Amino acid sequence: MKLKTMTMEWTGDSLILIDQRRLPFEEVYVTCADYRAVALSIKEMVVRGAPAIGATAAFGYVLGAKEILKKSHNYEQVVMQMKNVKETLAKTRPTAVNLFWALERMEKRLIRHGKYEGLVKVLEDEALKIAKEDIEVNKAIGRNGAQLLQDGFTVLTHCNAGALATVDYGTALGVLRAAKEQGKKIKVYADETRPYLQGARLTAWELMKDGFDVTLISDNMAGWVMKQGKINAVIVGADRIAANGDVANKIGTYMVAVLANRHGIPFYVAAPLSTIDMSIKSGKEIPIEERSHEEVLTCGGKRVAPNNVNVYNPAFDVTDHELVTAIITEKGVVYPPYEENIKKLFEEGI
Amino acid sequence: MKLKTMTMEWTGDSLILIDQRRLPFEEVYVTCADYRAVALSIKEMVVRGAPAIGATAAFGYVLGAKEILKKSHNYEQVVMQMKNVKETLAKTRPTAVNLFWALERMEKRLIRHGKYEGLVKVLEDEALKIAKEDIEVNKAIGRNGAQLLQDGFTVLTHCNAGALATVDYGTALGVLRAAKEQGKKIKVYADETRPYLQGARLTAWELMKDGFDVTLISDNMAGWVMKQGKINAVIVGADRIAANGDVANKIGTYMVAVLANRHGIPFYVAAPLSTIDMSIKSGKEIPIEERSHEEVLTCGGKRVAPNNVNVYNPAFDVTDHELVTAIITEKGVVYPPYEENIKKLFEEGI
Repeated sequence: MKLKTMTMEWTGDSLILIDQRRLPFEEVYVTCADYRAVALSIKEMVVRGAPAIGATAAFGYVLGAKEILKKSHNYEQVVMQMKNVKETLAKTRPTAVNLFWALERMEKRLIRHGKYEGLVKVLEDEALKIAKEDIEVNKAIGRNGAQLLQDGFTVLTHCNAGALATVDYGTALGVLRAAKEQGKKIKVYADETRPYLQGARLTAWELMKDGFDVTLISDNMAGWVMKQGKINAVIVGADRIAANGDVANKIGTYMVAVLANRHGIPFYVAAPLSTIDMSIKSGKEIPIEERSHEEVLTCGGKRVAPNNVNVYNPAFDVTDHELVTAIITEKGVVYPPYEENIKKLFEEGI
Repeated sequence: MKLKTMTMEWTGDSLILIDQRRLPFEEVYVTCADYRAVALSIKEMVVRGAPAIGATAAFGYVLGAKEILKKSHNYEQVVMQMKNVKETLAKTRPTAVNLFWALERMEKRLIRHGKYEGLVKVLEDEALKIAKEDIEVNKAIGRNGAQLLQDGFTVLTHCNAGALATVDYGTALGVLRAAKEQGKKIKVYADETRPYLQGARLTAWELMKDGFDVTLISDNMAGWVMKQGKINAVIVGADRIAANGDVANKIGTYMVAVLANRHGIPFYVAAPLSTIDMSIKSGKEIPIEERSHEEVLTCGGKRVAPNNVNVYNPAFDVTDHELVTAIITEKGVVYPPYEENIKKLFEEGI
């Protein structure tokens, strides 16, 4: 079975990823023929976005199994060696929980299968299921979120929670797509999202491809456009949501949430249940990745600051749940009190 | 009489400006031999920063007078023709009031002199007085502001309100310099300040030259560093302050003020009285310059977004006076209620 979307293609023998570092200027693809290449692609952000790296890691797990099964015919040995594969894929990036969620799910499938025979097929099917479910989940998020947007709304978004951040369709941008499919006219303001410029490079690109009216702004303009009454709602994605509704997402999300709060603008987080980490009580427990100083010292590859200046480069921040108007999931729109209502969502069964 | 600082040099025949567009990578100078070159340098941001463009325009006015006096020996004709010089210099940038303030002052001096003889000398002396007063004023702002900073404070600043934004010493960064001169240890977080990167390119550069411990962040990290308790105070400059204390300053200042407010961090504006425009009641009346889309579409000269995307690029925003903890002027630190206390400041005489 195969799969092909804008973000990734599974050929059966390899995972082909669009190189998101080079968008929108070049559409170049990276072919990952083994799990190490997959891990490197996640680490170096060929692919990024919580749901996308979850599915990517699942396919990496399949490639790891293929490699190991060629050398070892003993099921117990395979299980042992797959722990290394899992660890290699897991240690690429620390914040987005979907990565660990997908790897856990793959490992469970490996254990449940319980034998050597047919293992690759079973794991490949599971990875494809994760990927295809992601698309379905995003479409459900889109349907649930679209009801929150009125015809003529202008929505501000930060970073890229689009097709490129998922297997396809997107979470935050999926909501915009669903609203558009319902015939609503939606305008978008996209924060450029320094230092990695996911907004300028990816969100602007994929929304323009879909015919949206997109206006690009620097991140520090978000407050001013809100103050001028240009924005009706904010929608962002999430990398990890704690049991109390605190949201870890791309650096700057917290700033946008505080600004939306000041202006009485609803602040929505669109994310699948796989992004919710019920094992942590609050956002304080979410590990925040710090990335290379080079990202801040350069912009689009060009140096923009003096040598030797200190840099702080957290890749994510945590938005307090009280700043979140609602969390849009595939199971419905969740409102405060989050601790109670998120728990209910899981108890009602996924 | 001559003048030479990091920002500008007056030779008597020309104004030499450090090209701030090329800092910190190259220290290149632009020599303006006539008032048109001065106007172009302001418009194209060879020089920027409200007090700096005020003094620059004053020297441009002198160069204009020199040119006109060579051709015309009739005082009334000179006065008429100087109106064009003034207009050319005034229409370069709309937001910073110091530009208009300096040109008004030069024109008043022209009128007061009342005759052809000795006019260049009188105008040159006035421009030099404006420039030298600016340095003295900044040092007074520094002294007044330094008392607000405790030893060991970490201060966040936005854009560049430093030596490069003034004739010398700086307003917001002048306060940091004065605190340092008093022996206080002050750390600085500098917002990079997209799209023009004045923070990354200019603030980081000039503070490092002075031996400050500077940490560069992307603008969208300001909220997160505040939330983590890293910041004790915010100090920014201003391009124009209304009679009610509303502050127009570099785009993103409003965002920083809202974030400081949420975290209970004092938000100080350091500016000379020449930045206060008593003719306007509130920030709503301040014209906000919109600049070229190219600034947002590129970063450090490198393209960062897809072609044909819409862009909104306001160069300034307005911070409501209720978000401003105090305004630090050369006459003292002004606290709310601003309408009353700013009025008092002017009534007590400058």
